[in-house]
Formats: sequence, C-alpha cells, structure tokens
Amino acid sequence: MFKAEILGETLKDSIEALTIIVDEARVHLADGGIYARNADPSYVAMVEFELSVKAFEAYETDEEVITLDLKKMQDILELANRTDVVHVTIDENKMTLSFGDLKYTIALLSPYSIKKEPKVPNVESAAHVVITGKEFRWAVKAAAKVSDNIALGCVNTTFFMEAVGDADTMRLELSKDQLIDISRSDAKEEEVRSLFSLEFLIEMSKAIGKASEVSLDIGRNIPLKVGFDIADGNGTVTYLLAPRIEQE
Amino acid sequence: MFKAEILGETLKDSIEALTIIVDEARVHLADGGIYARNADPSYVAMVEFELSVKAFEAYETDEEVITLDLKKMQDILELANRTDVVHVTIDENKMTLSFGDLKYTIALLSPYSIKKEPKVPNVESAAHVVITGKEFRWAVKAAAKVSDNIALGCVNTTFFMEAVGDADTMRLELSKDQLIDISRSDAKEEEVRSLFSLEFLIEMSKAIGKASEVSLDIGRNIPLKVGFDIADGNGTVTYLLAPRIEQE
Amino acid sequence: MFKAEILGETLKDSIEALTIIVDEARVHLADGGIYARNADPSYVAMVEFELSVKAFEAYETDEEVITLDLKKMQDILELANRTDVVHVTIDENKMTLSFGDLKYTIALLSPYSIKKEPKVPNVESAAHVVITGKEFRWAVKAAAKVSDNIALGCVNTTFFMEAVGDADTMRLELSKDQLIDISRSDAKEEEVRSLFSLEFLIEMSKAIGKASEVSLDIGRNIPLKVGFDIADGNGTVTYLLAPRIEQE
Repeated sequence: MFKAEILGETLKDSIEALTIIVDEARVHLADGGIYARNADPSYVAMVEFELSVKAFEAYETDEEVITLDLKKMQDILELANRTDVVHVTIDENKMTLSFGDLKYTIALLSPYSIKKEPKVPNVESAAHVVITGKEFRWAVKAAAKVSDNIALGCVNTTFFMEAVGDADTMRLELSKDQLIDISRSDAKEEEVRSLFSLEFLIEMSKAIGKASEVSLDIGRNIPLKVGFDIADGNGTVTYLLAPRIEQE
Repeated sequence: MFKAEILGETLKDSIEALTIIVDEARVHLADGGIYARNADPSYVAMVEFELSVKAFEAYETDEEVITLDLKKMQDILELANRTDVVHVTIDENKMTLSFGDLKYTIALLSPYSIKKEPKVPNVESAAHVVITGKEFRWAVKAAAKVSDNIALGCVNTTFFMEAVGDADTMRLELSKDQLIDISRSDAKEEEVRSLFSLEFLIEMSKAIGKASEVSLDIGRNIPLKVGFDIADGNGTVTYLLAPRIEQE
Repeated sequence: MFKAEILGETLKDSIEALTIIVDEARVHLADGGIYARNADPSYVAMVEFELSVKAFEAYETDEEVITLDLKKMQDILELANRTDVVHVTIDENKMTLSFGDLKYTIALLSPYSIKKEPKVPNVESAAHVVITGKEFRWAVKAAAKVSDNIALGCVNTTFFMEAVGDADTMRLELSKDQLIDISRSDAKEEEVRSLFSLEFLIEMSKAIGKASEVSLDIGRNIPLKVGFDIADGNGTVTYLLAPRIEQE
C-alpha cells in the first residue's frame, strides 16, 4: 500500500528522467522517499534517481519495490498540468493516478519482467564541470550536425565538447569564466577527454536541458557522470554513460 | 443557380462539421437556408445539419440539391481568413468560391455518386446533459489513452465518461454543479450507460471542441445524440452515433 | 585563402537562395564580393547570385572559385542566430564557420563534382511587374490547391496568376493599384502569358516570400525572371525558370 500526493511538475520530471534510460523501471518506495537505479538494456547507460518525501505533498508507504510502466505513465501525465496535484495510490498491483476530474487505474508490471539492479561502477574523475542545462543541450545538438560521437574534456580550466565526423568537425570551448564552475583533481595542464555516443546524450539532454545547473564528471576514457536536481532540490538524477574507444 | 455571401468562419465551421462524417455531402439549397443529412459509409454515424439564411450576408437560391466535394472545399478554405466574406456561386455543376483576390472554380460531384439520405432513427434518451465543447474534447482525449471505446452515462445526476482497456481504466465524473445542465426523464437513481467507438468521437470532438455548449442525449444501449450550434445560433449540427455492445 | 565576417541573417538568406536551385554550388570569391551562377540538374531553373563586399563585416580574398555543400552549411547555420556574426575562413579545401562558442570545420567539395556554369539566356520580356514577396508566396500556395502548373501573365495593366487543374481552376488578379509597379514594353491591350511548373515556384517562393519587393519579367512562352534583393540591397538574387508548353 502506497498513497501520495505530488505536484504534476515533479511527477512528470521524475518519469522523464527515468524514461530516458528505461521504459520500465524498478522503483523502491521507502520511508524516506523513493529511489531507483536502472540500466538501459545494453548496459551502456545507467540512471540513479532519488526523490525525498519533501518533494511530496503527502506520502505514506509500506516500503515496497514496484515495477512501473513509464511510457504509459508519461502518456497519461501529458493530460496533467504542471501545477495539478496528482494523487497516486498503489495497491495489489494496481496504480491509481487522479488529477482534475480524471481518474486512471493502470496495472503495475511484474517485478520479474525487468533485469536486476545494476551495480554503480566506481569512477574517479579528473575534472568536475558545472554548466547550465541549456548550454549542455545546445552543445549536444551542435555535435549531432557532424557526428554520432562526442568527446568531452578539459584543457587547463577550459571545458570542451568536440565532435569529429568523417569530413567535418565541431568544437565548443567554454573557458573558466563562461562556466558555472570547474575544478580539477589532477595536474591542470594535461588534457583529459573521453568519447561518448551522442545517441544517449541526445536523449539525456531532453531531461538535462531543463536543469539550471548540470554537473559533469569527466576523466580519461572513463564513464561520464551527469548530475542535476529536480523538485527544487528535493530530488537528484545521476546518469552514468560508458565511454567509447577513441580511434586516434 | 445559387448565389450567396458568407463569413469565412461560418463556411469553414459548416464544412468541418460535415466532413467529420462524410467526404462528399448531399446538400439542400432551400429558401429558408441550407440543410443536409448524411451518414458515414458504415452507417455507424450520421450528421444532421441546418444553416438558416440568417447565417448568410446575402442569399439567393433556385432550390436545388447538390453534391459537394467537402475535402476540396476544406483545402481551398484553408486560405480564407475567418473574417473574409466568401462569395459562393453555383451554376451548371460548377461552384465558384471567391475571397480576397482569389477566385476558385470547382466541379460539383454527380448527385448519383453518393448514397441516398439516411432515415433518422427515433431515439428515446433517458438523460440530457449539457457540457462545454472543451470538456467533451478533453474527456475523449483522456479516454483514448487506455481504450478504443468509451462509455457515456449517468448515475443520479452525475455524468460520467469511462474507458476500459485491457489492463487500464479511465473515469471522468462531473457532478451536477460541474455541468451546464443535466436532466433525467427516468428514475434518477438508476445507472444509464451506452458504449461508443472512440474513433468517431475523436473525429466529432474536433468540431465539437469549439462549441461553448454541447448537449448529449444518452440512454441504455441506444444511439448517442450530440448537438451544438454554429454561426452564432443560426445553424445547428446534430450527430447520431450508434452504440456498441458492451461485454460484461 | 578567404577570411570574412558576415551577419548570420545574410549568410542564411544567401545559402537559402542558392539551395532552392542546387545542393552544391560553385561560388566565385572575387575582390568586389562573391557571385554564383548555377542551374538545377534538369536545366529548367537557374539562379544568379551576387553579394557585394558591403554585405560583409570584414572581407579578404585571394580570388578563388570554390564548391560549397549548401545543405551541410544550411544544417549548421540553423544553430546561428540571425544577429550572430559568423566568421568564415576558407583554406586548403577546408571551410571554418565560427559563431557564439561554436566552431565548425567542414570540407569543401571537389570543383569537378558539379557541372560547369550555365549560360544565361537572352530573354525579352513584355511585362515587368513588382509585387510583395508575401503576395507571390500566397498566390503560389493558392495555385497548388488545384494544379501542378501556374500561368503568369498580364491583360492591360492587370497582372494575373492562373492555375488550371483537371476539373478546377484558381485565378488571382491584381490591378495596377494593387501592385507596387507594372510596366509593359508591348501593346498594352494584348494578353501576355507563360506557363510554369509549380514545383520550382513553390521552392523559390520560400526564399522570395521574405523579400519586400519581387520583380517578375513575363513574356509569351519565354522564361520567367524573378528578382529580389537580399542583405539590405547589398546583394541580388535572380531566378530564371523555363516555361512549359501550354495546351489549349
């Protein structure tokens, strides 16, 4: 049994953040709030998601683990305004979503239908960069004009995103004063870079694009860690994306 | 010979109301105005249409029955503004539509190309409900998220729309004070309901959605009657939609 | 070696004007500015293009002839604002486009990959008409409702565009006072007209539609000449379109 009230905006943003990685998500309904850790079918990308009870208008749970049909929820929530309060009840494999004059009852998925939770790899990044979600989304869009891959990296305290296609290249550079923040845990002079699939970053940038601040943890051929807040800081989303081998 | 002047808005709305049921319509050009009664090819839905001479800026007719290519008219009228006065002339199987600097001449269809006019079934409804066109369109959209069918009905003086899909359900309830009007001709306590194909209601809701008031006549497994005004009350549109058999 | 700075707006409009006729364009980078003359693969339509050095913020050239991949440039320039200054550098078969924080390097095409420049036919038109680009675009759109061809012509000092389909016709007439200008070099009473493929005019009308003034030179079954300014009068675009044989 789970019973909660949540702002349309928060619920929509939460579902979107998860749906970028998976269509069906295993979600923990715990005392302190809900959390989830899901990997995409190819294990290239992963999402860690947390939403504190503070993000809810009302919250009551028996501590369960459920499996949500995110695509169906997203489709239904298209009808909810961002300012609507959505009433969510979960009982005996049924979820009820009520808002305005509407009441939907949808089936939960079988917990056996999705893979078990992935382990989060230990990543030691060399640079920590903070930019606006808007700038991140823009750069990903710009890279897609010439390539399927994008390299993220730093030289000194300049952050760069670079796409190299068959004949064409794109490079975006943001120096320290164009960034919200940049810090390096290694020798500053050296170039750090890793290459990633644009396909996943394009998807992620849809959720990321709304965030006022996005943190990027970058190293040498290690997974990229992308973090941002939702629900006015009462929730966090962290994506991990495996690097590609860069051919020199 | 027919010669008339009509506001772009009224002509567009009239064509749209008809085109939801048929692509080609038999239309009577009578002394008091124009009227039409057409059924869709499967005879599941029907439209009755009336537009008084008061809806025209100028009107002159020899009393004819013509067959219109609605899709072509709709395509051409996309170029007319709602405030344009459209000059319509019909003579010897040719229709002329003039507005702005443009003049179109299009062929009328052969009167033998379409089926004869359907008879209007005698329907004794148990409940009469009046809601806004916007609310109706919204409910139809909400139902489409989970099913291909929608039930319309009343319990006491609460109106409901309910969609039941394979695993999921949607229910919208509007009590008496959320409706413009509701009246029952039978015992109020009993539930009345009929099931309809969403496919037709989605189409109808495009024309209905603009109406400030829509009347719904609902009974027990009988056709739904949907009525609304066009042309500032100088025209009426009535749709009849056959019910589906509801499986318990 | 070529190095220039140009307003995003001017560069976008220039590429668009050319791309309507060809995907790849041979362009001359001369001392006085850039110019190009390209025909479409079927030789039905041709564009003459000129952009004076006055249209640039900065301009430096070694006088070269290059071959541009217009579609790729257009795709990249979608990201540039109309008010951005775009830095263009061409060196050793590479073109660099920089604006905002972005820098693109794209390959030039081989000069042997496209046909040689077409000769401009000598056209003696009978009527010269000036209308707004908006009106031109509108008429082309209106003609497309009924036909694949459009006739442009004059009767006395009335300009007309006429489309004749299988069963339907469209006619737009603009008298002298509805036109910006009209002048005739032949006997005014006679009708002049030529028939053209709408396919090309629809494409052209995308670039033409933005121009405040468009000049049309029309004769009897001779090519149509369409001229308009870009870059605040510091550039000109002229399209030539071969006529179709009109069947009486």
